Amino acid sequence: MKGRLEMLRELAVRSDTKMVLLVMDGLGGLPSVEGLTELESAFTPNLDMAALRGETGLLEIVDTGITPGSGPGHLSLFGYDPRDHFIGRGILEAMGTGAEVLPGEICARGNYSTWGEGDLILDRRAGRIDTESSSSITSLLGRSIREIDGVSVRFYPGLEHRFSVVLSGEELGEKVTDADPQIEGKPMVWAEPLDDSGRKTATVINSLIRKVREVLSGNEKANGCLLRGISGTPDIPLIPDLYGIRAAALATYPMYRGLARIVGMDVVDAGKTVESLFQSLRKNWDSFDFFFVHVKYTDSRGEDGDFEAKKEVIEKVDTLLPDLLSLDPDVLAVTGDHSTPAMMGGHSWHPSPLLVCSRFVRPDTTSQFGERSCSLGSLGLMPGSKLMGLMLAHAGRLAKYGA
Amino acid sequence: MKGRLEMLRELAVRSDTKMVLLVMDGLGGLPSVEGLTELESAFTPNLDMAALRGETGLLEIVDTGITPGSGPGHLSLFGYDPRDHFIGRGILEAMGTGAEVLPGEICARGNYSTWGEGDLILDRRAGRIDTESSSSITSLLGRSIREIDGVSVRFYPGLEHRFSVVLSGEELGEKVTDADPQIEGKPMVWAEPLDDSGRKTATVINSLIRKVREVLSGNEKANGCLLRGISGTPDIPLIPDLYGIRAAALATYPMYRGLARIVGMDVVDAGKTVESLFQSLRKNWDSFDFFFVHVKYTDSRGEDGDFEAKKEVIEKVDTLLPDLLSLDPDVLAVTGDHSTPAMMGGHSWHPSPLLVCSRFVRPDTTSQFGERSCSLGSLGLMPGSKLMGLMLAHAGRLAKYGA
Repeated sequence: MKGRLEMLRELAVRSDTKMVLLVMDGLGGLPSVEGLTELESAFTPNLDMAALRGETGLLEIVDTGITPGSGPGHLSLFGYDPRDHFIGRGILEAMGTGAEVLPGEICARGNYSTWGEGDLILDRRAGRIDTESSSSITSLLGRSIREIDGVSVRFYPGLEHRFSVVLSGEELGEKVTDADPQIEGKPMVWAEPLDDSGRKTATVINSLIRKVREVLSGNEKANGCLLRGISGTPDIPLIPDLYGIRAAALATYPMYRGLARIVGMDVVDAGKTVESLFQSLRKNWDSFDFFFVHVKYTDSRGEDGDFEAKKEVIEKVDTLLPDLLSLDPDVLAVTGDHSTPAMMGGHSWHPSPLLVCSRFVRPDTTSQFGERSCSLGSLGLMPGSKLMGLMLAHAGRLAKYGA
Repeated sequence: MKGRLEMLRELAVRSDTKMVLLVMDGLGGLPSVEGLTELESAFTPNLDMAALRGETGLLEIVDTGITPGSGPGHLSLFGYDPRDHFIGRGILEAMGTGAEVLPGEICARGNYSTWGEGDLILDRRAGRIDTESSSSITSLLGRSIREIDGVSVRFYPGLEHRFSVVLSGEELGEKVTDADPQIEGKPMVWAEPLDDSGRKTATVINSLIRKVREVLSGNEKANGCLLRGISGTPDIPLIPDLYGIRAAALATYPMYRGLARIVGMDVVDAGKTVESLFQSLRKNWDSFDFFFVHVKYTDSRGEDGDFEAKKEVIEKVDTLLPDLLSLDPDVLAVTGDHSTPAMMGGHSWHPSPLLVCSRFVRPDTTSQFGERSCSLGSLGLMPGSKLMGLMLAHAGRLAKYGA
């Protein structure tokens, strides 16, 4: 059977239409004791009006009952079946610390750690040193170590004991084990190649750790490091090639910018707040065809288990929606990359409410943006990876299939 | 693409939660002249309350328009796509007579038959001899024939002229034609191998029939037998390995116990009535994680074409539901393995009404357990084989997919 991406690539045509994919991370929820979900109980007159004018449904992001991580969740929204394409935990977390990774490069997430005699790992997190000290150590390493065995090395600071590192050079593969003993009080366990493709990477990783030990030898706590989750960018077709669009990512968190970058979007500055996201959208409006706008805080408050705070983030987004609509996008889709019910304090498998607005929708009977109302919408329960093609259709960017 | 079973196997985690899959065989129906189906017209206050509190939908057991047999119907509910995995009719019917079949063994269902001169088959069912006579013949054969060509043989009595036989030994394959002329008044047609793997089985089957002829030579009617539907157990991953659960099957009919056994469930004694099923559930509650509870009589009454009697079975189950709920299962799913509308007097392709209850459901707008109300439920029209993963999710037994 012809795969969906292959079909979209064949049918994609150019146009001057504008599309906005507004992702409220972890949008979907579960009812509180009062019987309504976060989204259902939020006061959202603008989203409700959009639901009334548009068509609605629920997105099954990965598959029934499967709780999506952020990587699979976004791949799905970008049109990739997350069962076919996978992004490793290592690269995602490294991107979360701000590491910029290009195709062919290899990244690892690092922990500063306390080493003792005979390479014993006394503390895998160097006493959870504070972010400021950690950043200055990372900066020192960046100045001291620029190359190992002909491979260039870049360091990125993270929170507390975390940092990440990106290797750039020839013959680097990702089939390498963690350089990490996993438990404390045991001797270091060095990186090993899982097959021939990982041989050079393992050597470089281990040399790098030795070099870091030298540079940090004067430190009491952070006198070494561990490197884990060694991975490269996934082998994935890029959005501009697939859909023939110039796509911009507007996200306040590094991980989502990283995710967008590895599927070929341009990352533009979007500040740190929900307001700055929408300002950035206006500022970049003329330069792109497609805008991925990522609101992180719905998920964060859901993860906190804070029903009211999650509801308030949704209400905040609602107040900014008229500003977005005043740009007159040809297609607007609003959804989440997974659900994060406050009552569960984490990601869940529940499908994600979806609304789609364009001049070409068949408005359904839904007049409110909520889980239950969307479950009665005309888009039904739809695989998340089909949304992208639907947006392209509404944007007049897909030719007819067959004569 | 990563298949669903593979994904579930990778994500499955242990928990101490309890799941109940209550299958009312052939539950779904069609409206009588009064306009309501068997389920819709049944008085089911407890199922309706569960539908109100839970989420509902319709299960497409095999595929749109495809009428499931009992084998595919249950495989689907157990999480296997019935288009990928198949259980032969022979083994199912043999299991229906109570035959216990282990992996590697071969079974066949038998007919006692009347043979004449020159191996003419005069009556394929030996005048439909009564069950008592048939059982005593089977018992005689069991005592007389224990081995053929080094292959051990077990006999199981069935109803009327039916019995089944299980072969246990080396090099037995299932690619063998029926030993049955199909029509009466014609000479016997012997088993033949379909390929090399069936060579030994065909030889043993034919020798066995000759031996049966010898032992029964004194009988007037049942002086021989036919052996049909020669098959082994399917090559199928087992439920405890797939999902990491201890699964119990509670069923009053042998075939459903056999079905459960070949997917790796433990079969526990459940008596002969609907009441004894629920008593057995309580008795075994502490020993398992998952309970497959099979109510046969909805299907039987549907097959009889008896609308009222099928409705009464549903009402009977409804009265026992509070007893089940008092066990406080973490997840309860109620559905059928296919529809059996009384007006059709047989299995049908219509999707099966489904309700799922747990602490983590998003209650939908459905407040009655019926075909029409479930068609508006938030689970939508869902492939039957996805139910199992959804139950595991609600039971907190699936980890997140990807970071």
